[in-house]
Amino acid sequence: MAPIKSWLAIPADSDFSLSNIPFGIITSRESRDRKRPAVAIGDHVLDLLAFSQRNGFAGSSFEKHIDVFSEPTLNAFAALGRPVHREVRAYLQDVFSETGKHAGVLRDNEELRTAALLNKEDTKTQLPMQIGDYTDFFAGINHAFNVGTMFRGPANALQPNYTHLPVGYHGRASSVVVSGTPITRPNGQILLDPAANPKIPIFGPCRRLDIELELGCFLCKGNALGTPIRIADAESHIFGYVLMNDWSARDIQTWEYVPLGPFNAKNFGTTVSAWVVLADALEPFRVKTLDNVTEVLPHLKGSEPATVFDIRLEVDLTTPEGATTTISKVSGKNLLWSFPQMLAHHSSGGCPMAVGDLLGSGTISGKSEDRSDLGSMLEMTQAGKQEIQLAGMDTRKFLKDGDEVVIRGSCGEAGEKIGFGTCEGKVHSAPVF
Amino acid sequence: MAPIKSWLAIPADSDFSLSNIPFGIITSRESRDRKRPAVAIGDHVLDLLAFSQRNGFAGSSFEKHIDVFSEPTLNAFAALGRPVHREVRAYLQDVFSETGKHAGVLRDNEELRTAALLNKEDTKTQLPMQIGDYTDFFAGINHAFNVGTMFRGPANALQPNYTHLPVGYHGRASSVVVSGTPITRPNGQILLDPAANPKIPIFGPCRRLDIELELGCFLCKGNALGTPIRIADAESHIFGYVLMNDWSARDIQTWEYVPLGPFNAKNFGTTVSAWVVLADALEPFRVKTLDNVTEVLPHLKGSEPATVFDIRLEVDLTTPEGATTTISKVSGKNLLWSFPQMLAHHSSGGCPMAVGDLLGSGTISGKSEDRSDLGSMLEMTQAGKQEIQLAGMDTRKFLKDGDEVVIRGSCGEAGEKIGFGTCEGKVHSAPVF
Repeated sequence: MAPIKSWLAIPADSDFSLSNIPFGIITSRESRDRKRPAVAIGDHVLDLLAFSQRNGFAGSSFEKHIDVFSEPTLNAFAALGRPVHREVRAYLQDVFSETGKHAGVLRDNEELRTAALLNKEDTKTQLPMQIGDYTDFFAGINHAFNVGTMFRGPANALQPNYTHLPVGYHGRASSVVVSGTPITRPNGQILLDPAANPKIPIFGPCRRLDIELELGCFLCKGNALGTPIRIADAESHIFGYVLMNDWSARDIQTWEYVPLGPFNAKNFGTTVSAWVVLADALEPFRVKTLDNVTEVLPHLKGSEPATVFDIRLEVDLTTPEGATTTISKVSGKNLLWSFPQMLAHHSSGGCPMAVGDLLGSGTISGKSEDRSDLGSMLEMTQAGKQEIQLAGMDTRKFLKDGDEVVIRGSCGEAGEKIGFGTCEGKVHSAPVF
Repeated sequence: MAPIKSWLAIPADSDFSLSNIPFGIITSRESRDRKRPAVAIGDHVLDLLAFSQRNGFAGSSFEKHIDVFSEPTLNAFAALGRPVHREVRAYLQDVFSETGKHAGVLRDNEELRTAALLNKEDTKTQLPMQIGDYTDFFAGINHAFNVGTMFRGPANALQPNYTHLPVGYHGRASSVVVSGTPITRPNGQILLDPAANPKIPIFGPCRRLDIELELGCFLCKGNALGTPIRIADAESHIFGYVLMNDWSARDIQTWEYVPLGPFNAKNFGTTVSAWVVLADALEPFRVKTLDNVTEVLPHLKGSEPATVFDIRLEVDLTTPEGATTTISKVSGKNLLWSFPQMLAHHSSGGCPMAVGDLLGSGTISGKSEDRSDLGSMLEMTQAGKQEIQLAGMDTRKFLKDGDEVVIRGSCGEAGEKIGFGTCEGKVHSAPVF
């Protein structure tokens, strides 16, 4: 199928082709920094508050719902449910399409175009959702294997539960930030010599600051306490997807994590990309999850095989001197568990999920021989034993102050790309105690 | 000091003496179930929305802030800060005092009394705060020792980090419920035979449903991402305290918790008592934390010794047949870490805390020889090896469907008790999958 053509000039390599229509929250100086929903399209954003207030949806059955675009987050829009998201996306595709039934709505209305169709560079993206709770899973089996091997050797790398349930933990919702937010290197307790006896930690700046390349999933539908979401219904609870960098302080983590799991090693910042790619937009890129050696229990088994998405993911590291190196390229399909399985498991004991909740996939790594497809520096350096070679004769084991990490992700071909834009953050130095 | 006398009849054994003045959120049929702030006093509650709207605060410098009592949670009131909480508490004590300068405000105004002073039984309590994030610590060293001993023997019961930092994990904010909310037994993955090889779990109702007796602490002040709260400032971030029951599914926990900590074993319900006892009200009951063998690092060391509160805590279990047994009596002082230490540690890496956040102490157990002061059934039964004797010739290892657990807590003597009311919940059966 040829790409749909737009009357608007959309660069062929744009993540935000007419096939995409991702949703976000923007501010602009013109709108006196009021947060408002928008969609990204090429190098433009369509301000949905301005568009809806000026009757942009008058030709759509969505007209009755336009109040959701007066909200400062996407939660109210998300809560309308997937059939409505689908309808709005199709309508907006029609509005921007060269041959659309509603092409005239914006193209032929200069006043509406001036008010609502903004140059992306004149706007700023904000956190798209109000996140009630954030849960991070560990569904990247290659990552789990690589890290488990470092601690317990390859024979015992995966814990006995790993192939039976999507292992996860509760993260810190308040520390989730939108792409572009600086990340301050955390101070924390660090045990410099693991072999020492007695074990006496120091307190100071993290020396092993790492990234975790992940996909995030926002929910559009919740459940009541005590009432699980069944695997067959789980897909209808998913609003859309973002890129995620779950920054991790490996030295703090090693000391603190027994017996209750990661805590301060993770809660100093988790970055998400600004534009939520609707679940429907990713449908054409579904692929099966990685094979599971275990026959999963019924609460995790849908009528169809579990699926994830074949998203091209890349990680760039830019040094303070300005040299950029792509340190990883990997497909998003490298997960043992699907997001519907994560959600069904999460709620299987009755945990109440809510609109706006964020689920992280866990670190996504491939298993190529040349080790070019790993999702954390911990894996790339074999726990700090090897250097990562960077452009400009530089090297890294872990992140330095001033380093900037940019994650990109997209599916599909030029002209019809379904892309996520970037998920980026720059490391600032730790505060002095 | 003799108790302050009130013109209102307050039963001598009431948790809500004039010395207390705890804050909560109520609904009533008369107010068409609109949530509104209130204080508890004896067998009454003072509806602060009605009181403030009818000029009850006209004689107080708080008058300018009364909009916070139009809110459906205590967050806006909490955010005013501890000096304001102190002022409002003192003013309300004066209003209810027999000899108060403002005793006439309510006593002599029948219309105001009718509108604002309600019989407690005509009202219903609601969750007092909007909880952004909930963190549960593990500061009850006797509990940590008892449980560690079960798994690793007494010599290695505590992990090496235990005396260096307050170990904690991120809990699930959405599953925190107010006292009285039924708790549905969770289904989950359970490994029936830990010695089996291969390890194949079943999925079904939890068979080891337990309680955890805890204290909870609500915050009234946050911090920005990357900006730690110093130990010297931590006390000013604390709004007040509640009783907590962190219901736990021990069999689900044992299987799921490696390597990332408890997840579905905890997120099916955490009960808090309805009335927030202000931090100031507990001041007279400060005692030192339990002795720490370790010299703590500077970020956890205040200028004064760390303190907790000598609160009498009790746990009652009522069977479906109606027989009630007190299964534990223990002081709240059995903690190794103070709440300010927990908060300073939590934010030491830059994690942003917010008004309304909830911190749990972890299970509080004593170490009496007769084992009458333990905070979990896991400890009372030595991991299910012994029976707990109940009234009516009944026994328990863990909770049965229909069991009701009531936690009570108070400080001080009759007539001037600072009490928490109850933290209660009844176990409902697991849904059928």
